[in-house]
This record gives sequence, C-alpha cells and structure tokens, in this order.
Amino acid sequence: MNQKYADVLAVLEDCIKACNHCFDACLKEEDVRMMSDCIRLDRECADICSYAIQSITRQSPFTDKILQLCAEICEQCAEECGKHDHDHCKQCAEACRKCAEACRNVA
Amino acid sequence: MNQKYADVLAVLEDCIKACNHCFDACLKEEDVRMMSDCIRLDRECADICSYAIQSITRQSPFTDKILQLCAEICEQCAEECGKHDHDHCKQCAEACRKCAEACRNVA
Amino acid sequence: MNQKYADVLAVLEDCIKACNHCFDACLKEEDVRMMSDCIRLDRECADICSYAIQSITRQSPFTDKILQLCAEICEQCAEECGKHDHDHCKQCAEACRKCAEACRNVA
Amino acid sequence: MNQKYADVLAVLEDCIKACNHCFDACLKEEDVRMMSDCIRLDRECADICSYAIQSITRQSPFTDKILQLCAEICEQCAEECGKHDHDHCKQCAEACRKCAEACRNVA
Repeated sequence: MNQKYADVLAVLEDCIKACNHCFDACLKEEDVRMMSDCIRLDRECADICSYAIQSITRQSPFTDKILQLCAEICEQCAEECGKHDHDHCKQCAEACRKCAEACRNVA
Repeated sequence: MNQKYADVLAVLEDCIKACNHCFDACLKEEDVRMMSDCIRLDRECADICSYAIQSITRQSPFTDKILQLCAEICEQCAEECGKHDHDHCKQCAEACRKCAEACRNVA
Repeated sequence: MNQKYADVLAVLEDCIKACNHCFDACLKEEDVRMMSDCIRLDRECADICSYAIQSITRQSPFTDKILQLCAEICEQCAEECGKHDHDHCKQCAEACRKCAEACRNVA
Repeated sequence: MNQKYADVLAVLEDCIKACNHCFDACLKEEDVRMMSDCIRLDRECADICSYAIQSITRQSPFTDKILQLCAEICEQCAEECGKHDHDHCKQCAEACRKCAEACRNVA
C-alpha cells in the first residue's frame, strides 16, 4: 500500500473507536435528548471511517474522493461533539479533528 | 440467484427502511432517553440486514449463517420496538418480525 | 422519507443485485483475467450503493454528497461492464447507468 | 471497552489489511482464474472483520455471535489462501488464522 495512505489507517481506526464509544456512552447519559445530534453524527462518522479503511486497503480507485467525504463528516462530528463536556465527547471531537486533518492531507 | 433467497431480499430491504426510519424518528422524540435501547437496536438491525443483502446477492458461502444471525437480531429489535406506542416503533417491530421469519425460513 | 429519495432506493437496490451478480458470475468465467477490473468495480459499486441506502433511509445529512459519489462510481462501473459481452455485464452496465442517473437527479 | 475485546481489535484491523491486499494482488496475478476462490473469500473476510470492529467498538449486544461467525469465515479464508504460494496469500492465511484464534478466544 502507498505509505501516505498507510499513515491514515491508524487515525481512521482511532476515529471509529472514539465515535462508537461516544455513540454508546451518549445513549447511556442522563439527558439523552441533548445528545441526539451527537449520536446521529457518531454513527455517520464511524460508518464513513469504516468505509474509508476498506477503500484504502483494497486500493480502491475512489479512495481520494472517499477521504474527502470522510474529512467533511469528521469535521461535522467534531463540531457537534465539541459542544459537550462529557469526556467521551471531548475525546471524540479530538479524534475526529485529527482524522479530518489526516484525510485532507492525503486526499 | 436461488429463488428462495430472492424472496427474502425485499423483506430485508423493508426492514432496513423501517429500522433506519425508527432510528431517525426516535432521535427526534421528546423523551429520547426512553428510546435509547430502540435507537441502539435499530442500528444493529439495519446493519445486519444490509450485510445480509450483500451476502445473498453475491452468493456468499456464508449466507445461511448470516441469515440466522439476522433473524436473531431482528427478533430482539422487534421485541424492543414492540414495547413502544410510537407509529415508527410499531411499524419497525412489524417489519422486524416479518424479516426474522423470512430469514429463518430460508436459512 | 422525502419522496425524491424514496424513488432512488429501488434503483439502488437493483444496482446492488446487478453488481454482486456480475461479481459472482465474473469469478466463474473461463477468462477471469479479462474480468479483473469488472470484479473490482462491481465490489466498489455494490458497496457504495449499500452505503447510499443506509444514508437515505436514516436521513443522513450527507445523503446528497454520498449520492454524488455513488453516481460517479456507478458510471465507472457501467463503463467497464459495457466493454464485455456477457449477459451479467450488460445487465450490470444498464443497472449502473440507471442508478447513476437517478442519483444525479436527486443529489 | 472491555479489555478482552480491545485486544481483538488490532488483530481484526490487520486481517482487513491482509485480506484486502490479497484481494487486490490476486486481481493483478497472471492466472486470476486460479485465484477466484481466494478473491471471493478475501472479500467475505474483510467485510466480516469490518463489521466485527464496528460491533465491538459500539458495545453491540451481538458481539460474541458476530465474532464466532468471523472466526469461521477467517478459517475458511485461511484455508483457501494457504493453498497458494504468493506472498500475499501466505500473509493473508497467517493473518486470518491469528484472527480466527483471537475471535474464538473472546467469543
């Protein structure tokens, strides 16, 4: 695999973990209602990251376009998670920002 | 494609629609907290149905096992959705029950 | 669900079926080597269609962008399949063209 | 996340990489025909590993069953790849065997 893509893989993997952990933790919060956009975007973001990993590892001819879309979804998820004070949201926002940046750098 | 599998496809497609509609609608409910298990299971169920469709249409050698798992997940989603009175939950429970039955019949 | 998206769903479902049937049939052809790009693009196309269906049905805020990407991948798959005389390739090319058009119309 | 599952994640990630690399490399081989079962199983295996990662990271109640299915698919992919002398096949067989074992250990 092209090295530039290899470096993004670890960041995408971390992002899936952070997003799905946040999804799970938001659903257990006292005030779930306040977290509904977060829950929605966590799912969106975990799914595009998962798709991006498949795309990179199989040398998809569409990898760059998928990473551009991934960057955009990560940014919106980071923005939403950044509004909340829960640890899982802060960690997710951080992982999403790093992932968005890594995707933009290679795509 | 084997006809017995072809018949399940439409049911799986309906089940994805019902589960994802219920996921979206639950996140918009007044009392999201009461819907948290429903939201979680809607995602689980939409994902396994999506995977099952891929599996059937590409003649995966693992289709029967995937459909058995799908039936089980559909049943749990139906059970959870069946506890709520919202229209989207009732429709989802109904779609999941039909899907579970169709999966069990062919697998 | 918005009606304009509802109409695309059936076309996406047909496209997954055609692509995965073509993937499976290409792998059984005498001259698999000639079909390698077709096999690769069939997988790409089935995966983005599957992702698009999830996106539409859960009211993803990224649906339009996903459908734009889907249209592009469908077009490339249609172009490759259009080069071959096998029935499964011709049917796949046709399904991909219809799907690309439907995605472009709504996105 | 439960530590026992955390340990499986890295193995699943390696398995996706090995399977998708093998998928890509098989499609570039001189004798693609001989690799057709390998291509098919590489896709099956990458997809179930991807699904298993999503399942673990979102604390799916179905994780153990998904990992059991994953172990089985990994074993069949390992068996097929093990028949071939290409480096990508040998590496894939090794990654699949490790993954099958890790999945069985936790599930």
